[in-house]
Amino acid sequence: MTESADRENETAKPAQQQETSDQNEIYGEDGSIRQDYLAAIGAAIADRDVLFLRDQVIPLHESELGDLLEAISGSQRQALVALLGDDFDFSALTEVDEAIRLEIVGALPNAKIAEALGDLDSDDAVYILEDLDEADQREILAALPFTERVRLRRSLDYPEDTAGRRMQTEFVAVPPFWTVGQTIDYMREEEDLPDHFSQIFVIDPTFKLVGGVDLDRILRTKRQARIEDVMEETRYRIDAEMDQEEAAQLFEQYDLLSAAVVDENERLVGVLTIDDVVDVIHAEADEDIKRLGGVGDEELSDNIISTVRSRFSWLLINLATAILASWVISLFDATIEQMVALAVLMPIVASMGGNAGTQTMTVTVRALATRDIDIYNAGRVIRREAAVGLINGVLFAAIIGVVAGLWFANSSLGGIIAAAMVVNMLAAALAGILLPLLLDKIGADPAIASAVFVTTVTDVVGFFAFLGLAGWWLALA
Amino acid sequence: MTESADRENETAKPAQQQETSDQNEIYGEDGSIRQDYLAAIGAAIADRDVLFLRDQVIPLHESELGDLLEAISGSQRQALVALLGDDFDFSALTEVDEAIRLEIVGALPNAKIAEALGDLDSDDAVYILEDLDEADQREILAALPFTERVRLRRSLDYPEDTAGRRMQTEFVAVPPFWTVGQTIDYMREEEDLPDHFSQIFVIDPTFKLVGGVDLDRILRTKRQARIEDVMEETRYRIDAEMDQEEAAQLFEQYDLLSAAVVDENERLVGVLTIDDVVDVIHAEADEDIKRLGGVGDEELSDNIISTVRSRFSWLLINLATAILASWVISLFDATIEQMVALAVLMPIVASMGGNAGTQTMTVTVRALATRDIDIYNAGRVIRREAAVGLINGVLFAAIIGVVAGLWFANSSLGGIIAAAMVVNMLAAALAGILLPLLLDKIGADPAIASAVFVTTVTDVVGFFAFLGLAGWWLALA
Repeated sequence: MTESADRENETAKPAQQQETSDQNEIYGEDGSIRQDYLAAIGAAIADRDVLFLRDQVIPLHESELGDLLEAISGSQRQALVALLGDDFDFSALTEVDEAIRLEIVGALPNAKIAEALGDLDSDDAVYILEDLDEADQREILAALPFTERVRLRRSLDYPEDTAGRRMQTEFVAVPPFWTVGQTIDYMREEEDLPDHFSQIFVIDPTFKLVGGVDLDRILRTKRQARIEDVMEETRYRIDAEMDQEEAAQLFEQYDLLSAAVVDENERLVGVLTIDDVVDVIHAEADEDIKRLGGVGDEELSDNIISTVRSRFSWLLINLATAILASWVISLFDATIEQMVALAVLMPIVASMGGNAGTQTMTVTVRALATRDIDIYNAGRVIRREAAVGLINGVLFAAIIGVVAGLWFANSSLGGIIAAAMVVNMLAAALAGILLPLLLDKIGADPAIASAVFVTTVTDVVGFFAFLGLAGWWLALA
Repeated sequence: MTESADRENETAKPAQQQETSDQNEIYGEDGSIRQDYLAAIGAAIADRDVLFLRDQVIPLHESELGDLLEAISGSQRQALVALLGDDFDFSALTEVDEAIRLEIVGALPNAKIAEALGDLDSDDAVYILEDLDEADQREILAALPFTERVRLRRSLDYPEDTAGRRMQTEFVAVPPFWTVGQTIDYMREEEDLPDHFSQIFVIDPTFKLVGGVDLDRILRTKRQARIEDVMEETRYRIDAEMDQEEAAQLFEQYDLLSAAVVDENERLVGVLTIDDVVDVIHAEADEDIKRLGGVGDEELSDNIISTVRSRFSWLLINLATAILASWVISLFDATIEQMVALAVLMPIVASMGGNAGTQTMTVTVRALATRDIDIYNAGRVIRREAAVGLINGVLFAAIIGVVAGLWFANSSLGGIIAAAMVVNMLAAALAGILLPLLLDKIGADPAIASAVFVTTVTDVVGFFAFLGLAGWWLALA
């Protein structure tokens, strides 16, 4: 990562451009904010040097300001926001962790927050509002002008994680009978356009969505052409109640830049844009990785107590399954007493099964998330995983059989661990594919629960197969 | 997932729109292609019913055709591509797994491929070309018209995974002294524009990049305004040699829709668009998840042999670490012989350490990937993880101490396992944070190697602490 960060640094800011891109220079070679920049900001905060801070901070992109806020201490953050006053760009709050956002917003009076939110795009305003408690939300909304209030209220009325909650309520919409020339003239005259847009929407008098036109299409069409002749019917409209993850999948599948969001009466209520969707894609991938790792939706800025709490429940479930595995071992305590080598070797069988099961499970969970697995190929994938498990099982059975046989100078012991290995690797493959499929089928998130079930299966089967076979063989001998 | 897929289905295609969105209807309620649709396509392929196939397949979006290709069998794929002939949309090949892409392209003569690639956007053509062997690449390029050949050659000359390899070489560029009106007139007249664009670039006579203008800015500006007055200097230009992951991070950080790609002389050579970047973001997240799960860059369409091979090496490393852990146990075989309960309980200590270590490692690897961790907060994060490990260690020590003490009616044994648990949970936290940081520091990918090192530490420390303490206590008694 360090290497490629260096490369970015060389290439993103060529020498002859440096004077125009000073802002980029807040990042050092490793991609994090430069230490001397942080020191200068910190000193200016301590000195209450508002002029210097304005000069440094106002030109920053909202994401750069977000990174800066995350890099300084809590007390510095409060002081910086206070010193900047109206010059503090609230949209930077959409770029920081929730804990930091709440900390900053929590320290400001509601009237101040309302004033700042009025200047933001509606999606950014909603993003900041949604985490506040209801009393604060109400007070802030009440302080906003009527149209703003109605817009934000509408977004907030949609459930969390829906397209309606994420959409921007500023958009450009024209009637189908306008000409391209009229449309361009309208955009030249109108003051109140969204900051950025890549598509204009076509609506009927009742605000029902009729279609959409990409801006490049407008630009390559003669002025006299009518909008209804150049528009496309929007195949990929998004219902405001749609889950944001579903919406993100539509964007990805059809390479959309923006899409109309409609209410239950087919009326245009907002627009969802690709930058929000990129955030959703990232958040979903993050969620999958973290759930597979057993850390829920923890963030780096969470404090010790909430981190302990969120990890505790996962570890508690794991403790229960570990005790279950121990109970399986305890069934064979007489066998182990007879031959301590079994205690030495048994973790190998369990560990190999656990890892093989995790491999299969990872592929399955990922394929479910990206919808690469479905009822048509599930059968084929299950057979493939079983075959892979069996082949790797036989290969590792041969290796561990020889190793164990030589180690304890006991070829029967080698044979027993080899047999147990084949059994457990096959069980691992089947658990790794079938458990996530089953969890998905019953509507549970396969990422969150698969890991614990899969390793439970491989521990229990591993110990049972190895110690059971050994006990049977010792009884024969 | 099934639930939300249902919701999408209800909402994405409202009843009054269904006649216009028949194409969407190839997907069933679970988000995969409908079985009856597949059956109809399969029957038409068997009957060589070209008319029906054209009617069904030509209106599909490239990603829908890609899904169809992945859902049918290999022989059906070959037959479908052959039957469609020139009506087969080659851009669908950018939507399927590499194995399927090579299978389809491999069955076609190079002249045919050249003809098809000529119709594609350059980035799609390069995507298909780059996986072919060099002889085929040369032959296909030789069959293309001169300008096409030069463009594709240029992209292919950039290393894999760079912006230059991913960029599209079709773009709109105008001189700075043009007016907005002239620019619009040019776009209305020019036949050879890219299919979609959201930004036009401004270049000097030597093709050096001067700036860029978003289309919405063009549309809201009077005709007589000059381009140089409305353009923005492109702060976020991308060097063609830049790693695609770095480029993706710039897109994400600055919410870009497209960005100019320049060569080493600052000349504009192409444009990178957000849809390519979304693919990169997805691929990188996929890579992280799969590497953490020990399955490298495996794809679902890989055959059994290559899957076995790719997983084997990871399992082999795990076997070596499992044998190391067993060796630690073997040091205490006399102790276990004295008290078999130790063999029953020891996997609990190792397993809890492994899980706690995986939690910390997951957070760390993810934070490194998203650059949320850096030299400024590393110290704080390390202290936090150590504190969390210690607190959870103490909590679980208390639980397992009581459980083990009651189970074996031996309070000393409870005390021993409790002490070992605290030690191992602390070791897990430190290994989970320090190993990924170290791997990242030395330029290794923390996602690929952390898991095996972390569980090695927790196994070895877990067995050593528990059995060592027990041995010491038994020797005293």
